[in-house]
Amino acid sequence: MSRYFTEKLSSLTPYTPGEQPKDMQYIKLNTNESPFAPSKSVSDAVLSESQKLQLYSDPECVNVRRELARVYGVDINKVIVTNGSDEVLNFAFMAFADQKNPLVFPNITYGFYPVFAQLNGIPYTEIPLKDDFTIDINDYIGINKTVVIANPNAPTGIALTLGDIEKIVASNPNNVVIIDEAYVDFGAQSAVSLVEKYENLLVVQTFSKSRSMAGARLGFAIGCESLIADLNTIRYSTNPYNVNRMTDAAGTAALKDNNYYMENCKTIVKNREWTVNELQKLGFEVLPSKANFVFAKCDKIDGEELYLQLKNRGILIRHFNKDSICQYNRITIGAIEQMQKLIDEITLILEEN
Amino acid sequence: MSRYFTEKLSSLTPYTPGEQPKDMQYIKLNTNESPFAPSKSVSDAVLSESQKLQLYSDPECVNVRRELARVYGVDINKVIVTNGSDEVLNFAFMAFADQKNPLVFPNITYGFYPVFAQLNGIPYTEIPLKDDFTIDINDYIGINKTVVIANPNAPTGIALTLGDIEKIVASNPNNVVIIDEAYVDFGAQSAVSLVEKYENLLVVQTFSKSRSMAGARLGFAIGCESLIADLNTIRYSTNPYNVNRMTDAAGTAALKDNNYYMENCKTIVKNREWTVNELQKLGFEVLPSKANFVFAKCDKIDGEELYLQLKNRGILIRHFNKDSICQYNRITIGAIEQMQKLIDEITLILEEN
Repeated sequence: MSRYFTEKLSSLTPYTPGEQPKDMQYIKLNTNESPFAPSKSVSDAVLSESQKLQLYSDPECVNVRRELARVYGVDINKVIVTNGSDEVLNFAFMAFADQKNPLVFPNITYGFYPVFAQLNGIPYTEIPLKDDFTIDINDYIGINKTVVIANPNAPTGIALTLGDIEKIVASNPNNVVIIDEAYVDFGAQSAVSLVEKYENLLVVQTFSKSRSMAGARLGFAIGCESLIADLNTIRYSTNPYNVNRMTDAAGTAALKDNNYYMENCKTIVKNREWTVNELQKLGFEVLPSKANFVFAKCDKIDGEELYLQLKNRGILIRHFNKDSICQYNRITIGAIEQMQKLIDEITLILEEN
Repeated sequence: MSRYFTEKLSSLTPYTPGEQPKDMQYIKLNTNESPFAPSKSVSDAVLSESQKLQLYSDPECVNVRRELARVYGVDINKVIVTNGSDEVLNFAFMAFADQKNPLVFPNITYGFYPVFAQLNGIPYTEIPLKDDFTIDINDYIGINKTVVIANPNAPTGIALTLGDIEKIVASNPNNVVIIDEAYVDFGAQSAVSLVEKYENLLVVQTFSKSRSMAGARLGFAIGCESLIADLNTIRYSTNPYNVNRMTDAAGTAALKDNNYYMENCKTIVKNREWTVNELQKLGFEVLPSKANFVFAKCDKIDGEELYLQLKNRGILIRHFNKDSICQYNRITIGAIEQMQKLIDEITLILEEN
């Protein structure tokens, strides 16, 4: 830290992204990426834009927002796009939470929420999950705070029903409820259909997982027009050209190929079921996942030890040091060949253990 | 505004980017874009990345930072890259200014500085330029505030010498001095050479102007390692994957073709000299520019009127409503054919006036 760093941020602990070691080629099951490349039309669209990079991107991102509006059946003014969904989450925290409207979210969830809160000086409460790692929605009913819920939750993969989400939203009319649906396309129910009914609901999604575009950085939020307008006030006060030309075009092309991506999601769901079954055969306890990852532990081996041994064998999975979950690992569901290799290596590790 | 928008941001006035009307094809001389497309190797690099978008980008952006370190002759740990230079400016304001270390910048300069200050709740003072639109460096010597200076300044185009910059930096050892060099490659002197000597100097640049990549969003800052570490603390607390895979690759490829871009800058300087000469022949007063734009007024026609009439004729230039500069227009220097067309149309407008 330099001696010039502002005091109020001096105790900030940044988020730690999943490791990306460069020492060898790993099977990457640690950052919930898709095993499928984007469709050909995405490449074509990007190539075309790459020859016009001297021109600024459209600050309104009309092309990709129009396609999002079409695919999700909402008005274009209910849609904002950002440089990944982390950016719109940060904007939403800035816009809709403060000293008077503190944040509340589960104590096991996406690790970036407390970081955004600290960065913006927003007080927050973390509510424990139940023993089975599910969210008790009674904890959030009428809580009168700005609520953030990842659905499905991460790293557990467990989803709430749309009915439960609606109860939380309806019971907190004076606060915004942010539903982070990064993983919703792998089997959970989206709350987008509730946006017309509730002015306090903001649904956040990303192209990183189900649409094979983690490396393009494209997130979006859908909410009533006034919420989106507030987020745009912040966007135009930080970085009006936040989505670059190539990403705008890639997202637009991907949405035109939506069937391709939704079929890929079905494959991931199939691979997840296969993997869960194989892990259970090996003695793992696997939480019921609606995401493109599973959260699993095995009494026969320490969680960190399994992570380290798999890394030695060229497979990366995600381990978290937090006490309550350190026996678990989060394993991304990739292509079936990758999952077979994972199961083979875990089998060997357990035999040698 | 929604009823949920936080009170502290409710009076925020966002930045207004240059207009991008979609009603017809304009000659765009309003957002200081380059008239030159990026080099072929940029397209090639982008195409290759577009087939790997399912994978996250490198959060450390080692490839493009390594090339920046090479081109600018500094250690890689003295370099940070961001989603356009607006992002690193915002990070720097957040990191190095607060109630105790308020900001100071000229009252005519890049319009985003007061917006960033307001967004982050940082007090700021705007120091008037001299009557000839130059900065009086005595206003900044030993001022003991966080200083931000665009060099060359915008929208005037007037540059300070490296010696003057050094005096400001050396006289404010307890505050960071941010030199925003968005336009430095068109004839001004960069302060990068001073980074080794002054731990309080942060130099910000962008690929948007001289490297034909406005639409790719790539900015960077060079400063001592501890300043860069502070900016990374903020980056990892907002958006660790802030630079996407395609932009990282495009920037890397552009730096390997650096001669192409530096030759283009020389062409722009030549076109600028031609344009200044032609404008002066038409009775314009043109401020001495070291940027890829000129700031000019003509007693024969109102500033806004000229802007509107040129827009009617298919040419966009940038007009600012601020009283002290509303007789001027900022005109981007493009290709010589574009500048010839501009001069032809202005000639006709003045004849008809």
